[in-house]
Amino acid sequence: MAVARLVVAYDGTGFRGWARQPRVRTVEGVLTEALERVLRRAPALSVAGRTDAGVHARGQVVSFPGADGTDLGRLQRSVNDMLAPEVVVVRCSRASDWFDARRSATAREYRYRISLAEVPDPFRARFTWHLPTELVLSPMRRAARDLVGRHDFSSFGRASQGGTTTRTLQRLSVTRTGDLVEIGARADAFLQQMVRSLVGTLVAVGEGRIAPDSMPVALAARSRNAAGPVAPPHGLTLERVFYGRGGKDRDRSVGRR
Amino acid sequence: MAVARLVVAYDGTGFRGWARQPRVRTVEGVLTEALERVLRRAPALSVAGRTDAGVHARGQVVSFPGADGTDLGRLQRSVNDMLAPEVVVVRCSRASDWFDARRSATAREYRYRISLAEVPDPFRARFTWHLPTELVLSPMRRAARDLVGRHDFSSFGRASQGGTTTRTLQRLSVTRTGDLVEIGARADAFLQQMVRSLVGTLVAVGEGRIAPDSMPVALAARSRNAAGPVAPPHGLTLERVFYGRGGKDRDRSVGRR
Repeated sequence: MAVARLVVAYDGTGFRGWARQPRVRTVEGVLTEALERVLRRAPALSVAGRTDAGVHARGQVVSFPGADGTDLGRLQRSVNDMLAPEVVVVRCSRASDWFDARRSATAREYRYRISLAEVPDPFRARFTWHLPTELVLSPMRRAARDLVGRHDFSSFGRASQGGTTTRTLQRLSVTRTGDLVEIGARADAFLQQMVRSLVGTLVAVGEGRIAPDSMPVALAARSRNAAGPVAPPHGLTLERVFYGRGGKDRDRSVGRR
Repeated sequence: MAVARLVVAYDGTGFRGWARQPRVRTVEGVLTEALERVLRRAPALSVAGRTDAGVHARGQVVSFPGADGTDLGRLQRSVNDMLAPEVVVVRCSRASDWFDARRSATAREYRYRISLAEVPDPFRARFTWHLPTELVLSPMRRAARDLVGRHDFSSFGRASQGGTTTRTLQRLSVTRTGDLVEIGARADAFLQQMVRSLVGTLVAVGEGRIAPDSMPVALAARSRNAAGPVAPPHGLTLERVFYGRGGKDRDRSVGRR
């Protein structure tokens, strides 16, 4: 039984996050409804990253089983006719029957955007945290180095349903271009609110409110109080999801960016 | 009597254009109301570009007289507290008493953004016309060359209140970066809908529906039927307004981008 694999981009501003909930507008909710109108059945969606309310995605990955007889090109066009440009199916392909967007994912990559400009920019305001302050990047990078690796991240986020809080943070980068600071984070998986908690902590380090060498202590505390504040959701975008080594499922993709 | 000069940026999506109208949300309307709360009087605004419904601005210029006793830094912060990030006062300065945002302007520069990507991009959809087609740029540039100069542009737009339809188009450029085509237009002033009419015509040339060498005939016809269709408003942004040669009024500016 073939599986459909969708790469999905969305502006999360108007949604209460990914996960479907009664009487609330969510990305999973509108996507399931749109797919149901094409498939004439409600698909059970698996998703790589359950983004919070207000968080965006450029390369979210979604899958559902039972796609054998489905014209995926038509499915992509029909869903985009209903939902674009707020939610867009960027690519749509048939994957092997063992593929599951959440369980098969080997890494997730997020990007958080901060504007240090004195006044906000209407053209990036939906996707950027406007923080008219001075951030010193070198202590932020020092702190980031101590956070990379396999750690118990319970100071920085919650596990869903009481699972393990150990994660491998593969990369945590801080770059600046003009007034724009970008924090990139890649891990095997993230706890709830973990990226925004890492960002809020690095910002506090950059403002001189948290010592750059205090990350090992913050990790060891295993308490949310040991980390900095949680950054607002609208600066955060799920950029990309990784599968295995070769990304073999891309080969039969329909559509392109 | 000193004049206040404001550089204003806005996301035009939620507005019925610049010009104040009863019972309709316009940029001039919300800006006048916000200024009135700070000044405790309704200022008479002069504006460099009366943008249409859905058109954006990055460097709109607005002025009003009677700013002698006004703390312009506080005015900028107060207005931004009320209106940002949808409408933002980027700079605020005191200008000479002869300065008038509309009458003193010597040129306006607009930019129109077109995405040729197969699927729309939620991150640029508000500010970009999604046109999943093939545009050939060289005939568009050929046509643009024939449009530059001092012409009667009545085939491409309406004069307000029966004024002259002769304008000097100083620059009309077509550039491409990946899937993004940008059309830049600078003139002493533009007729109503003129930029969008130029863009719609150049797009029709790029799609092969209008001959690239037909612009002299289209200009000579002096009829709106002689030009191509009007491009949708959301791809258009007023980027910059020029004043004289030196931009002397910038010197005393408060705030920065």
